[in-house]
Amino acid sequence: MPIDPVDLSARLIRCPSVTPEEGGALVLLERLLAEAGFACTRVDRGGVSNLFARWGAKNAARSFGFGGHTDVVPVGDEAAWTHPPFSGLIEDGVLWGRGATDMKTGVAAFVAAAVDFVKDTPPEGAIVFVITGDEEGPAKDGTVAVLDWMEAQGETMSVCLVGEPTSPEVLGDMIKIGRRGSVTFDLVAEGVQGHVAYPHRAKNPLHALVDLLGRMNAQPLDNGTAHFDPTSLQMTTIDCGNQASNVVPARAMARVNIRFNDAHSGASLTEWAEGLVAEVAGATGVKIGLTASISGESFYTAPGPFVDLVSNAIEAECGIRPELSTSGGTSDARFIKNHCPVLEFGLVGKTMHKVDERIEIAQITQLKAVYTRILKGYFV
Amino acid sequence: MPIDPVDLSARLIRCPSVTPEEGGALVLLERLLAEAGFACTRVDRGGVSNLFARWGAKNAARSFGFGGHTDVVPVGDEAAWTHPPFSGLIEDGVLWGRGATDMKTGVAAFVAAAVDFVKDTPPEGAIVFVITGDEEGPAKDGTVAVLDWMEAQGETMSVCLVGEPTSPEVLGDMIKIGRRGSVTFDLVAEGVQGHVAYPHRAKNPLHALVDLLGRMNAQPLDNGTAHFDPTSLQMTTIDCGNQASNVVPARAMARVNIRFNDAHSGASLTEWAEGLVAEVAGATGVKIGLTASISGESFYTAPGPFVDLVSNAIEAECGIRPELSTSGGTSDARFIKNHCPVLEFGLVGKTMHKVDERIEIAQITQLKAVYTRILKGYFV
Ligand SMILES: [Zn+2]
Ligand SMILES: [Zn+2]
Repeated sequence: MPIDPVDLSARLIRCPSVTPEEGGALVLLERLLAEAGFACTRVDRGGVSNLFARWGAKNAARSFGFGGHTDVVPVGDEAAWTHPPFSGLIEDGVLWGRGATDMKTGVAAFVAAAVDFVKDTPPEGAIVFVITGDEEGPAKDGTVAVLDWMEAQGETMSVCLVGEPTSPEVLGDMIKIGRRGSVTFDLVAEGVQGHVAYPHRAKNPLHALVDLLGRMNAQPLDNGTAHFDPTSLQMTTIDCGNQASNVVPARAMARVNIRFNDAHSGASLTEWAEGLVAEVAGATGVKIGLTASISGESFYTAPGPFVDLVSNAIEAECGIRPELSTSGGTSDARFIKNHCPVLEFGLVGKTMHKVDERIEIAQITQLKAVYTRILKGYFV
Repeated sequence: MPIDPVDLSARLIRCPSVTPEEGGALVLLERLLAEAGFACTRVDRGGVSNLFARWGAKNAARSFGFGGHTDVVPVGDEAAWTHPPFSGLIEDGVLWGRGATDMKTGVAAFVAAAVDFVKDTPPEGAIVFVITGDEEGPAKDGTVAVLDWMEAQGETMSVCLVGEPTSPEVLGDMIKIGRRGSVTFDLVAEGVQGHVAYPHRAKNPLHALVDLLGRMNAQPLDNGTAHFDPTSLQMTTIDCGNQASNVVPARAMARVNIRFNDAHSGASLTEWAEGLVAEVAGATGVKIGLTASISGESFYTAPGPFVDLVSNAIEAECGIRPELSTSGGTSDARFIKNHCPVLEFGLVGKTMHKVDERIEIAQITQLKAVYTRILKGYFV
């Protein structure tokens, strides 16, 4: 009996898997996949539940991977929702609920496609699922935990498709063939407190921070590369909390986030920032601490057979040729790219992370058809 | 019976007149001055108590003014005081308590000098007291209220001596013949919130503030003038409060204080700042609101007979020639300078505003002697 991707989507939405809660979603997937002949392993780490599943031989020459997540962001103002966020209600051809676009539907569509596919036309090769409960959270013990486990076990993927909602307007209008990386700098400046009338007895940490941030933002880090938008630096906060207008404060902090393209790495940007910190600290006498948090390097999968396979399948089912994009935020593809070529394709994500997240059920059915066509094309 | 300035100082310290509380201090002074023949008027405004007192005729050709305050700053950590802050305790020749330097002692010394002086050698002219209970607070309804009232009543001072603690190391080593002015700019930047991965859809108010503050601080406003230290600009706070490292905030604020010399005025600096705000707002599209609070213009009393009178009296009593300075913070002399030439001279202020504020009682007696000599010299 084939799996209905709309029904499975609704059942997954009814699992209250707000990150990092498992909420029953992985248990449900594990049961369905096991019934279809997938070897399933729960790879739980640090309080996070994750699922690895493989159909076919461990050492298959060709294995097609799918990456996704069942955790969802919090519902926000629950009273503002038209239908309860975990209802999975279908009305007038629309499925409602948290995860309806990001990305329980994408997972359901690929599970439905893969289960039908291995039953109808068992491929020569393997199909692998890497499903995490920690994509919307810190992402330290999610996809990374499964990939670590796979490496230890000798489990591999030849290629991997991530089912995030990548379509801006209509299903099929965009696939992501890369993403910029992300690094966050936390800056803490420690000066010497004093009275504003006696500035020579004080060292103003705000002057040092403004100097430093000005240097960081003085020039664009690049003007974009062949495949990427320009690197973008954004100051996200500066805080001091000094109420007294006659006092030079002792301490202030700032945070800067950089979304960087393939002209940089987290390490190269950290080195660059540390150089500026040293210049400003030297010039001002203010101590400046820098803590860099690299949440992901950029990745890029060059056009070629894998990109063509996915693009052709989309064009055949949706009637449009997808744009190949490297724009937008980060996804767990930033981890998978260290293991195999990775692409992202999924639904229209307009309502993701919002109140009244929802999707037309026709999109889910169409996405299953695209995924099925990709699998068939891969294992020809 | 002469007034003992040490005893009067102690009695004033025992009045808990933390700004803007009257605490009994002005009541005590009014009674003593009235008994000595001063015409006293309480000039209260906006919940603040102030005292005007005059010995001699209202239309005297020469009238010597004294400016001072009986309000004190809060005691801070009361448990950290060696003696209770309102004890007025004398031990080993030292008087302890809040106001022991700033400036109940200065008021007591001049009251004692003036009361003795008018009794012993009644002058041809007038002696005027302008005593406020709002110098340490907003200073909106203190000295300004008395000066407004005096103007309405036709009351005048030919010159005025303010008894703030001006001596850095030993009594008599400095008089203030001017002070820098002070203006505070409150800056509020309103941009457009967004996700850091889509910076073109956001307008970052922090980038605008850093740009603006960098321009403000790029060059010294001057290198000092003939009589003044350089103007000094200090950022006192920047605040945003954005916790999310992937969000461009909508709003941020900053505060800047400028202590300015006679090359500037509050209005000229406000115009300068507004020009920079317009430049940055135009370049970034971020709305920036600027609110200027001018707490006082600079003042300068050129060396001449009044300065010589005070300097000579100090040299005669203390054995040192005072430095003529325009350094340090603001005082109510910034208001009096609009009415008559004004100078400041008083005790060593090392412990002012601190825990364990205290003064050697010998300094109080010596200060009374200096003040007496100034009065004698003025009315020769
Ligand atoms: Zn997602
Ligand atoms: Zn004072």
